[in-house]
Amino acid sequence: MSATQTAQLMDGTGLAGRIVEEAAARAAQISQHTGTSPCLATVLVGEDPASVTYVRMKRARCAKAGIRSRHIALPAATTTAELIDTLAGLSDDPDVHGILLQHPCGPHIDERAAFEAIAPHKDVDGVTAHSFAAMSFGLPGFVSCTPGGIMRLLEAYDVDLTGRRAAVVGRSAILGKPVGMLLLARDATVTYCHSRTADLPDIIREADVVVAAVGRPRLIRGEDIKPGAVVIDAGYNRGNVGDVDFDAALTRARLITPVPGGVGPMTIAVLLAQTVDAAADQLGIEHH
Amino acid sequence: MSATQTAQLMDGTGLAGRIVEEAAARAAQISQHTGTSPCLATVLVGEDPASVTYVRMKRARCAKAGIRSRHIALPAATTTAELIDTLAGLSDDPDVHGILLQHPCGPHIDERAAFEAIAPHKDVDGVTAHSFAAMSFGLPGFVSCTPGGIMRLLEAYDVDLTGRRAAVVGRSAILGKPVGMLLLARDATVTYCHSRTADLPDIIREADVVVAAVGRPRLIRGEDIKPGAVVIDAGYNRGNVGDVDFDAALTRARLITPVPGGVGPMTIAVLLAQTVDAAADQLGIEHH
Repeated sequence: MSATQTAQLMDGTGLAGRIVEEAAARAAQISQHTGTSPCLATVLVGEDPASVTYVRMKRARCAKAGIRSRHIALPAATTTAELIDTLAGLSDDPDVHGILLQHPCGPHIDERAAFEAIAPHKDVDGVTAHSFAAMSFGLPGFVSCTPGGIMRLLEAYDVDLTGRRAAVVGRSAILGKPVGMLLLARDATVTYCHSRTADLPDIIREADVVVAAVGRPRLIRGEDIKPGAVVIDAGYNRGNVGDVDFDAALTRARLITPVPGGVGPMTIAVLLAQTVDAAADQLGIEHH
Repeated sequence: MSATQTAQLMDGTGLAGRIVEEAAARAAQISQHTGTSPCLATVLVGEDPASVTYVRMKRARCAKAGIRSRHIALPAATTTAELIDTLAGLSDDPDVHGILLQHPCGPHIDERAAFEAIAPHKDVDGVTAHSFAAMSFGLPGFVSCTPGGIMRLLEAYDVDLTGRRAAVVGRSAILGKPVGMLLLARDATVTYCHSRTADLPDIIREADVVVAAVGRPRLIRGEDIKPGAVVIDAGYNRGNVGDVDFDAALTRARLITPVPGGVGPMTIAVLLAQTVDAAADQLGIEHH
């Protein structure tokens, strides 16, 4: 095994920038045609510092793209019923086109029940059962933002998925499960791996595409990456470390996402693009 | 390789019989307590002979178990909008506890739109987006009947799924996709295979559990079955031939479902059990 870099980096920052630019241009058109700009409601329960930062970042990106945002900060003691009321109200509010519930919401909240209070046509974060089923069945609908971002990266780099083995490591409702379904819809042969998987290295060694989405630093060893594979690292760990041993994977993969600058920026870009899509639909503007 | 049978047959007929017996006992209790027996609405578009037979069989089983059924036969020319109206009406009708739309409905019907007109609490056939998401996220809800039947068979035979490799061959919305999600919820490492899968025999050879659900006679060769594997054949083909080469698989598998008498009878049993569950819920009877 040579220690030479063979992999091309997948430039999520650049691609996300182009998607956001396009969303901004469409937001401006919508504003010009209707007098109303797209509006994303952000809902945050409590004051978890990381969540506060994420929401602030998302709102700043919205502002830069000409998307309004309306922030609803709820106290940490908010009940599931109160949160559902808030989300149902936003679902009914014609001035709100997309709704983002920042999660995790805290252990006392039934997050799934809360997600389901978001009207499917405003589910720009792709968290509802409706959106999951749409992704799974290949129907129109919003995608979960990180899975959607991953698929756009794969498209941008012309990755052929038909009949290829894809290993999805992680099975969360907003990342692992939907990205597997999106890969399956593109005719990949998809294996879902997780904490109980007995033989992860064996599965990785056979994968043409690896999507790591567990949040365990360097869980995926570089030596297990199949030469020529495409490696998507959606893991977020302290110190900008992904789920893949990046340096070692670099010598074997054909394409790999850096951390940061790979999947991360794509998530917000898809959120913004979908918010503009939602506004266009709700305001009766023809789809892009 | 010895030509001796090593596999134990999984007796779907027997297990289904016990499930139906239990459903009948609960239906009788419900009737006694409320004066109303569970009621399944069956909806059929057109007169496809196979569909007519399936619906008749399901209704006969209902009758034997003390479950009423109300049959709605719609002409072949029924539009999607008319079908949705019918299903929405049944969803609102307090005398109907479960709804079964017999499919396929014909090429002119938007089947997904029709399924979504079934209220989730009456979706005893487990075909709605809501039910699919519930299966995928491990939440309460109705399961698709064949996947649910397969899981009950695996439980009845104490098949340990944690960390085991499961190959699901087929990716339909009502069979392959949901059974994979149910296996994943039970901590199996699940690989979805399908018509575009390049290396099916390789995947089958590594699978501890094979679920065949494509409807291609003997697609899965016996010689590829891993010795000691559990083989679930949900394929239906002419002449009572499954998707697995049964005779050859018999010499390698540890457990295998016969065709017929394996998965088939389980489907109706789960339908009946879920209809009784739905009636109990809607009539305010405590759950079994």
